[in-house]
Amino acid sequence: MQPVMSVAEVEAFLVREFPQIYLDGPLYRVESLAPGVAAMRFTASERHLRPGGTVSGPAMMALADLAAYVVILGHIGPVALAVTTNLNINFLRKPAPGDLIATCRLLKLGKRLAVVDCAIAGEGEAALVAHATATYSVPPER
Amino acid sequence: MQPVMSVAEVEAFLVREFPQIYLDGPLYRVESLAPGVAAMRFTASERHLRPGGTVSGPAMMALADLAAYVVILGHIGPVALAVTTNLNINFLRKPAPGDLIATCRLLKLGKRLAVVDCAIAGEGEAALVAHATATYSVPPER
Amino acid sequence: MQPVMSVAEVEAFLVREFPQIYLDGPLYRVESLAPGVAAMRFTASERHLRPGGTVSGPAMMALADLAAYVVILGHIGPVALAVTTNLNINFLRKPAPGDLIATCRLLKLGKRLAVVDCAIAGEGEAALVAHATATYSVPPER
Amino acid sequence: MQPVMSVAEVEAFLVREFPQIYLDGPLYRVESLAPGVAAMRFTASERHLRPGGTVSGPAMMALADLAAYVVILGHIGPVALAVTTNLNINFLRKPAPGDLIATCRLLKLGKRLAVVDCAIAGEGEAALVAHATATYSVPPER
Repeated sequence: MQPVMSVAEVEAFLVREFPQIYLDGPLYRVESLAPGVAAMRFTASERHLRPGGTVSGPAMMALADLAAYVVILGHIGPVALAVTTNLNINFLRKPAPGDLIATCRLLKLGKRLAVVDCAIAGEGEAALVAHATATYSVPPER
Repeated sequence: MQPVMSVAEVEAFLVREFPQIYLDGPLYRVESLAPGVAAMRFTASERHLRPGGTVSGPAMMALADLAAYVVILGHIGPVALAVTTNLNINFLRKPAPGDLIATCRLLKLGKRLAVVDCAIAGEGEAALVAHATATYSVPPER
Repeated sequence: MQPVMSVAEVEAFLVREFPQIYLDGPLYRVESLAPGVAAMRFTASERHLRPGGTVSGPAMMALADLAAYVVILGHIGPVALAVTTNLNINFLRKPAPGDLIATCRLLKLGKRLAVVDCAIAGEGEAALVAHATATYSVPPER
Repeated sequence: MQPVMSVAEVEAFLVREFPQIYLDGPLYRVESLAPGVAAMRFTASERHLRPGGTVSGPAMMALADLAAYVVILGHIGPVALAVTTNLNINFLRKPAPGDLIATCRLLKLGKRLAVVDCAIAGEGEAALVAHATATYSVPPER
């Protein structure tokens, strides 16, 4: 399961197709893309914070959804249209201030569905702050 | 299971405690609060839209999470601190342009956990665009 | 969304295709099938019980999965092969002794995926003991 | 995060407390228990099979639930009562005939909730047949 896009190609695609997610600046950056796995860095802006400086739940859900999309996109290429059909997330600990890294692995890349496991942790931290599983519907004729 | 707060009290609490969610204006409004159920209206702004004018998945996840919080808050009162522990969402159809209404029902309001069912549909539409289930941890000593 | 099979046809199909689920007797019975909804009754046998006479979690998961299959089958007909792709369940209360009724509603019956909401309660009880959401992959060429 | 029970102690506890799961013989065996992780082997009997000799979905759900319990039990000890509050499972591929191994990792072992990631694969296979996440409520006064 080899990626078919580079990190730069994925980022260029995101900027072009989803300009709305960059309205507050380049908060989402693809850190790496390797066989079956992608990592995305998220720098929260004020709207993503909650009292105490912790990143909000919805910001982590958005991060999981986007990072899951990135690992799928990187393996099926930019022509494909993938849409989320299911996302399940467990919130485990309050994030400390600082960037979050979402590491997503392809559990399955099928003809119709892709399933991704997504672990979110503070940079350099072993303990996860959240864990998600996402399913995307992928186009069969690719 | 009677609400212990009014719609106005819930909205005032949200504005005070979570000012970040109103950075783009009053996009989230509590429509109603009744025994075991609450409804919230969401008016998407540009950042919540995707190509074709459809509301993004993360915007619907944020809506489900907030509306679930509202029905819990309305039944346990403003002193309590509740945090999401799990959210599971199925995306069913692309939303048409227009406001979305999230209708959340308490499936359980226990001593430690509250579980909420959340149906999201376009205003006046019967077909759901998304369906979520959320679990919140609630403080035992309330 | 009209059913295309009768209760008797669905039960005959289950007995023929899934004889294993009846090894302990007719524990699963279709109670009703109506537009978009089906109800299934479950009578636990010894293997499904836990200390105190309560029905086990896995028995409720199996019930939710089967009842979700029934509502889909009843609406797409016996030629179709549907397989579960995702099941999410929240356990809400310990069931009291007695039969359980699983009531499943079609949230979506699409070309590729069907999504079902499933509420499980003791017979005649309003409070749910469990709530599940299940997604089935359905054959596109039906 | 060190286990506080041995494999033999966990198995003896299961046999004593949950005799119902062994009605068809010793189908569930704890393979290993290490810091934060446990593995369980499952040998399907006829009732767990579906056409083609594949293990049924409910049998995999039961396996995930039990293996998740084992990793928690092994780390909190036999005095504690833990109950499942949520289980989410994605079915990825049809299992080939043969034993299944469920490998469960503790994502969180908190004062009130434990969250477990559970990967199920055929023995010696890298590709998962199912992936689950389970939450257990654990007693606070332990």
